[in-house]
Amino acid sequence: MTDSFTLKEISDYLDGKILSGNPDSVITGVSAIQDAGPADICYYGNTKYAGYLGTTNAKAVIVASSVETSADCVLLVEDAYDGFRKVLHLFKPDHSSGFSKLHSSAVIHPDSHTGRNIRIGPHAVIDTDCVVGDNCSIGSGSVLGPDVVMGNDCLIYPNVTLLAGTVIGNNVIIHSGTVVGSDGFGFVFDAEGQHKKIPQNGNVIIGNNVEIGANCTIDRAVTGSTKIGDHTKLDNLIQVAHNVCIGKGCFIAAQSGIAGSTVVGNGVVFGGQVGVSGHLVINDGAVIAAKSGVTKDVDSGVTVSGNPARPHMETLRLGAAVSRLPKIIELVKEFNTGKTGETGD
Amino acid sequence: MTDSFTLKEISDYLDGKILSGNPDSVITGVSAIQDAGPADICYYGNTKYAGYLGTTNAKAVIVASSVETSADCVLLVEDAYDGFRKVLHLFKPDHSSGFSKLHSSAVIHPDSHTGRNIRIGPHAVIDTDCVVGDNCSIGSGSVLGPDVVMGNDCLIYPNVTLLAGTVIGNNVIIHSGTVVGSDGFGFVFDAEGQHKKIPQNGNVIIGNNVEIGANCTIDRAVTGSTKIGDHTKLDNLIQVAHNVCIGKGCFIAAQSGIAGSTVVGNGVVFGGQVGVSGHLVINDGAVIAAKSGVTKDVDSGVTVSGNPARPHMETLRLGAAVSRLPKIIELVKEFNTGKTGETGD
Amino acid sequence: MTDSFTLKEISDYLDGKILSGNPDSVITGVSAIQDAGPADICYYGNTKYAGYLGTTNAKAVIVASSVETSADCVLLVEDAYDGFRKVLHLFKPDHSSGFSKLHSSAVIHPDSHTGRNIRIGPHAVIDTDCVVGDNCSIGSGSVLGPDVVMGNDCLIYPNVTLLAGTVIGNNVIIHSGTVVGSDGFGFVFDAEGQHKKIPQNGNVIIGNNVEIGANCTIDRAVTGSTKIGDHTKLDNLIQVAHNVCIGKGCFIAAQSGIAGSTVVGNGVVFGGQVGVSGHLVINDGAVIAAKSGVTKDVDSGVTVSGNPARPHMETLRLGAAVSRLPKIIELVKEFNTGKTGETGD
Repeated sequence: MTDSFTLKEISDYLDGKILSGNPDSVITGVSAIQDAGPADICYYGNTKYAGYLGTTNAKAVIVASSVETSADCVLLVEDAYDGFRKVLHLFKPDHSSGFSKLHSSAVIHPDSHTGRNIRIGPHAVIDTDCVVGDNCSIGSGSVLGPDVVMGNDCLIYPNVTLLAGTVIGNNVIIHSGTVVGSDGFGFVFDAEGQHKKIPQNGNVIIGNNVEIGANCTIDRAVTGSTKIGDHTKLDNLIQVAHNVCIGKGCFIAAQSGIAGSTVVGNGVVFGGQVGVSGHLVINDGAVIAAKSGVTKDVDSGVTVSGNPARPHMETLRLGAAVSRLPKIIELVKEFNTGKTGETGD
Repeated sequence: MTDSFTLKEISDYLDGKILSGNPDSVITGVSAIQDAGPADICYYGNTKYAGYLGTTNAKAVIVASSVETSADCVLLVEDAYDGFRKVLHLFKPDHSSGFSKLHSSAVIHPDSHTGRNIRIGPHAVIDTDCVVGDNCSIGSGSVLGPDVVMGNDCLIYPNVTLLAGTVIGNNVIIHSGTVVGSDGFGFVFDAEGQHKKIPQNGNVIIGNNVEIGANCTIDRAVTGSTKIGDHTKLDNLIQVAHNVCIGKGCFIAAQSGIAGSTVVGNGVVFGGQVGVSGHLVINDGAVIAAKSGVTKDVDSGVTVSGNPARPHMETLRLGAAVSRLPKIIELVKEFNTGKTGETGD
Repeated sequence: MTDSFTLKEISDYLDGKILSGNPDSVITGVSAIQDAGPADICYYGNTKYAGYLGTTNAKAVIVASSVETSADCVLLVEDAYDGFRKVLHLFKPDHSSGFSKLHSSAVIHPDSHTGRNIRIGPHAVIDTDCVVGDNCSIGSGSVLGPDVVMGNDCLIYPNVTLLAGTVIGNNVIIHSGTVVGSDGFGFVFDAEGQHKKIPQNGNVIIGNNVEIGANCTIDRAVTGSTKIGDHTKLDNLIQVAHNVCIGKGCFIAAQSGIAGSTVVGNGVVFGGQVGVSGHLVINDGAVIAAKSGVTKDVDSGVTVSGNPARPHMETLRLGAAVSRLPKIIELVKEFNTGKTGETGD
């Protein structure tokens, strides 16, 4: 059952202004501008999509400045994308679980403490000496090892594994398949050249308001803690090695990996498939372009790209130079042939 | 218990022709040409393996044209590799589960509907309002969130997570550890620079005859659906971001990732560890070489490679030019030293 | 409850020599030199951390040669890092499970055989005809398909999936989320251009003393076995395709992938995010630098880097040449403009 709202109700909710259209128009869904149906609301905020303004079938469009559009209704707000975000909440589909809040098949050790208003799905497991705060949800098949501590308002999706000693703040979301607290990858070579395992005695500490995507791996520290700071968001399939320390408000795209003991500052942004070597410092506000291979410290606010990663402008300059290289080689060969007959081949 | 067949039985099954060898020869297994034992059948189809024709211990070899070989028997078919495929079916080992078809430890919400002849493994979970078609198998520990719809003849391996609202066609295979329907990675920055989560209201729709490897992540759409078309095959550890639309008959190798809203046409092939930026169009029949970083649309039928990805011939040309660069620099230094004394260092 | 030891006890345990400090000093923990508290022991072995020797708050430092330090106690051993490893064992935190050794919610098929002194967590599943050796631990939610054979002293973390027919040696560790025995990625194109699945009849064989990180995927062979040799260690999120054969004592960092049928020798080391094409041979003792894309065989003992991977010295030489390219282009343009007015743009 989808909810429906009038344009006026949505406008009031967004603290917006109706630039055109009937305030009583009924909106039954939210959609992208190019996909919207005749009772949908959408938003326009990226000029790349300007072509759809005149063709959209949407009933209403949320904008931050006046536009010409085929939609009947135009709703002005301060930040169109944030308006879209809020409207998505209005129309969020109801996918509530049909199971009881504490499913009888979940296994919860009696020496663990769970807060008020929590939900624990079928076949979830909570080992001994855990603390789970209020309003948390632990999905089906998820496993909390011994001594896991979790704050309030956390959402742990199904089939997550939180290993022994993991500490999680408030309002944290962890998606399915993610493993927190696996052993770091540490070995010492003995005299016979065999690897001997370095015990991984530390843990993982995750701050408040963190979101971690699906099938990530976050290794426990050798000693001390691997840390992920408040408000940091990780996409899917990300590797965080032992003793990595990620600051606050970072934004790390899918399939990136950070090797051991590297320190990532605050407000750092990674594109996808980035690799960062161990024992480095990525300073506050740095931006690492997708697929970069970072082998040196990155200064605050600097954007790097390429492998090995360099300041982005330098990567672009070298890339442009390489693009011209075949032509340059032709020129050099011409000079050289003229002089010595040597072609450089 | 391995089955055994005579050469004649296999020849009949493959609609083949015995070029040499006793039709009553007993074949008890199938193997690679270099590993085959004296009662095995193998195939020869790749000239890289021609050296093994004279040394193989196989009893029989499947070929598409006459060959000289140490094997007693030669079996001619139209397509040797397809013959091999069929013979693999003949000798498929029996690894049937010993559990009852609907294991008593599985938790199935009574408001979900399951078809005929289905198998549900121990500790599997099916939440409310799901529909599972006929002849499906749901592996141990797999979780279907609320409102998952699945066609007939699907094979879901153990520890798969299909989140709320996921729609799956007929004859789909999903390997262990894969997560379908995790939230897309979408945030809006507020005035204080904090990330606010964009609700991910959409779902994932997977077509017919799709196979998805192990530990993949396929995010749900913001609105609408992330889509994977009929007959498309994904290898392991692949990331498909929100609102990506992959066409029919694509073939995506391991550890590739596709960023949000990118559209992949039909018959597209990716090598491993490819990364594709968001909001791009990869047109029908394009080929993306392994480890490419695709930052622009790719035209129909074009092969691209490198990072940033370029048409493959151009990548090769630039790579060859770079290989010659040290020599070219020497030449330029010679000219220059002769003229100005400047060495370019 | 952390244990505590005197310096003398630790020195005796390490077969070390107290260079300075009171033998009765009480040590209550082990830490990194930069993080150590006043009752901690740390080690010094990497000159990168020399600056901490004079500032550490540690009570004691383990060294392999005499040093000046702010720590009260200095303990001399032959190999400082190995001493650290041993001390980590002394102080390993106790995160024992609170559940009974064979949890009643685990589902174990009666036709499987489990050895002495084993631990099976809640909701683990062991299908028919498995053999699990003595002293093994199978974590919560882990699934063993039919016909899995495991030696003694194995540690299988929660939510691992070991599919039908997998064979595992002694003293193997497999971290959470890892999938062993998923189908390889093999298809044949039929006349209509559709992919037809090649049955994957083989299995995976893992040797002794192997460790496999979290969320890895190791595919079963088409025929025969995908193999991982004794003492080989895999980090997290690694892809091992069908029929890959990895030798002994290899060391493969996170997010690397090895395509089908490639043979990796003994003592091979991979950095992170490496990709290796199929049907190659990486010979003994080769080193593959992080993010390399390996497209050709690698000779014994050779270090390669880059994409496509080349001998590392060549990659460095070409990288240095490319760094100089913009300057070289300027020089060439100067010559050329002087001669022909053509700028090479």
